[in-house]
Amino acid sequence: MAEDLKITPWGVSGNVQDKDYDKIANEFGAKIIDERLLKRIKDVTGDLHPFLLNGIFYAHRDLDLVLDDYGKGKPFYLYTGRGPSGEMHLGHILPFMFTKWLQDKFNAELIIQITDDEKYLFREIEDRDLKEFTHNNIIDILSLGFNPDKTHILIDSEHSGILYNNAIKVARNITASSVKAVFGLKDSDNIGKFFFTSIQAVPAFILSYLKNENIRCLIPYGIDQDPHFKLARDVLPKLGYYKPSAIISKFIPSLQGSGKMSSSDPNSVISLNDSRNTVRKKLMKYAFSGGRDTAEEQRKYGANPDIDFSFNIFRIMEDNQSKVSSIYESYKSGEMLSGEMKSIAAEKISEFLDILRSRREDVENNLDAYMFDEKKFN
Amino acid sequence: MAEDLKITPWGVSGNVQDKDYDKIANEFGAKIIDERLLKRIKDVTGDLHPFLLNGIFYAHRDLDLVLDDYGKGKPFYLYTGRGPSGEMHLGHILPFMFTKWLQDKFNAELIIQITDDEKYLFREIEDRDLKEFTHNNIIDILSLGFNPDKTHILIDSEHSGILYNNAIKVARNITASSVKAVFGLKDSDNIGKFFFTSIQAVPAFILSYLKNENIRCLIPYGIDQDPHFKLARDVLPKLGYYKPSAIISKFIPSLQGSGKMSSSDPNSVISLNDSRNTVRKKLMKYAFSGGRDTAEEQRKYGANPDIDFSFNIFRIMEDNQSKVSSIYESYKSGEMLSGEMKSIAAEKISEFLDILRSRREDVENNLDAYMFDEKKFN
Repeated sequence: MAEDLKITPWGVSGNVQDKDYDKIANEFGAKIIDERLLKRIKDVTGDLHPFLLNGIFYAHRDLDLVLDDYGKGKPFYLYTGRGPSGEMHLGHILPFMFTKWLQDKFNAELIIQITDDEKYLFREIEDRDLKEFTHNNIIDILSLGFNPDKTHILIDSEHSGILYNNAIKVARNITASSVKAVFGLKDSDNIGKFFFTSIQAVPAFILSYLKNENIRCLIPYGIDQDPHFKLARDVLPKLGYYKPSAIISKFIPSLQGSGKMSSSDPNSVISLNDSRNTVRKKLMKYAFSGGRDTAEEQRKYGANPDIDFSFNIFRIMEDNQSKVSSIYESYKSGEMLSGEMKSIAAEKISEFLDILRSRREDVENNLDAYMFDEKKFN
Repeated sequence: MAEDLKITPWGVSGNVQDKDYDKIANEFGAKIIDERLLKRIKDVTGDLHPFLLNGIFYAHRDLDLVLDDYGKGKPFYLYTGRGPSGEMHLGHILPFMFTKWLQDKFNAELIIQITDDEKYLFREIEDRDLKEFTHNNIIDILSLGFNPDKTHILIDSEHSGILYNNAIKVARNITASSVKAVFGLKDSDNIGKFFFTSIQAVPAFILSYLKNENIRCLIPYGIDQDPHFKLARDVLPKLGYYKPSAIISKFIPSLQGSGKMSSSDPNSVISLNDSRNTVRKKLMKYAFSGGRDTAEEQRKYGANPDIDFSFNIFRIMEDNQSKVSSIYESYKSGEMLSGEMKSIAAEKISEFLDILRSRREDVENNLDAYMFDEKKFN
């Protein structure tokens, strides 16, 4: 692991810099998404999502195999998840945008696992709060516009029967030594933590299990979740299933421009509930700027957009890449000032949040349609 | 632990002698059932089951509290279980006779947990076999004549939803250190084994959970299961439930008269499928005898019934204690020979097996009535 960095699903210590990510992927044994692979994707999808263009989803495992299958007319399915530990913020929701893009482009079934049991075991959040977080988080996620016919919300506590029965198959193939090595668990940790990874492995083969035929699973996830799926890749072939494929993202940075946008520091996050005014204020006050100290210097020397939070968040949220390029040039040249860049980003974020909020009620009234139901698959 | 003895739910090493049991109970922290407690039980039940009279169920935890509650008109419920690892033999079924007696005398609800997941995780028995063992074992157990209105078969794989959701509450309060210390698990053991005890703890509070009021649970079990319930007693109060009470048995000895009747040595067991002829032959050939080497010596010096398998099995299966006493005297005095004692025991066992077999079909046709259904409790 890159020096001073410790990355597990339950915590990232040290400040992850952009330069660290390739090292992390290498150490985890994942591959970097290269130009060749981007071209293969584009050949199918017609265009590339900004998350791919800008290297947010930057590493993978066996993505080739998924594309091979797809090329031969064999479907695959997508699986991603959310641990409902509180209000969602922009850093939580953006990766789901990419998953939605994949779903749309590949017309794929998608399972979204809500790991309320994980949060119960690791964070000691109580049942009542978990129910509320779960409900709200699901609405937030679905407000991105997922296809109700192909999107299946799998809540661990509500589908615990099928999950446990399949998780023991995984668990039988994972030793306590492995979870200690991979997650850093200790003997003083509770036995639910030791077991949990086997629950998170189940959606990676649940469709193959239900349909009684082998279907590839592609899992978009943040690099911190890699230990789970690394283990799952070791175990699933022993159960007769494919190794799950993965497409792996960097963290969405905090407003301060590096590290991970994390609820533990409220000044580092844009909340989904933030008003237009609040978003603007937060960016003005906290967003790390690649601009110069004074307007004068900025006009003279230009900004460094690559390290600028506002530019970076804008470029991954904006589909129109020629617009991104022109703003890049204008900001870099000094024509555009830091405050203007912040305004543009604030506007982009607020538009996005407005759309999410405008859809919440419809989604809430239609929640049942999205719920995982094994009868749909057999 | 008594020297050379290692007792966990998954194996007993060393040869447990009758003299060891008190020591084991003491070391596990259970109390011996004394005359005072026997009298308290008899005051309610009117008579004492041979398993109590003969010290098979010989130790307890908080049995007083159950009797206190019962005396005040508060019901308690019974919970016991079976790991479906193969055909049941006499050593497996006899403890259930005692549980049935408790159910009848105290008019108690009874949960019988079938831990097929345990066998999957610990013994690597495959699904298909487990289904068959589970089905057959349940019929064997129910053929004892349990009350269908008050008996609830809880199969782990079929009720895994409610079990897992409650098990994580237990698991959050048990460290890996604890299960290593209590069960002797190692880092090289699979993580399902680490988690499993929390599944076995759930029936000890499931009725309180479902009825949303605290009801005491009394668990009859063999001493090898004590580590599970010792842990459960530590955890359940943290969840707001009573510590489960326990009534604890010695092992049913092998035909060789000591140790544990165990399927791993076919010459040591009476199978429930054994014909009258087979039972008789096994006793004649393998049953450890307290008699003398020759008929002549036996007539002269008499037998030692206390170490005689046939007498011991007879006395715990025979309700009529004056009959037991008269056979004891007659055998001890030399009036009765070893072969006669074996015949009497073989007859007793065969009668019992005949009754079980005569009920199998009815039970099988009525299985649904016995299945655990949470709707019955709320």
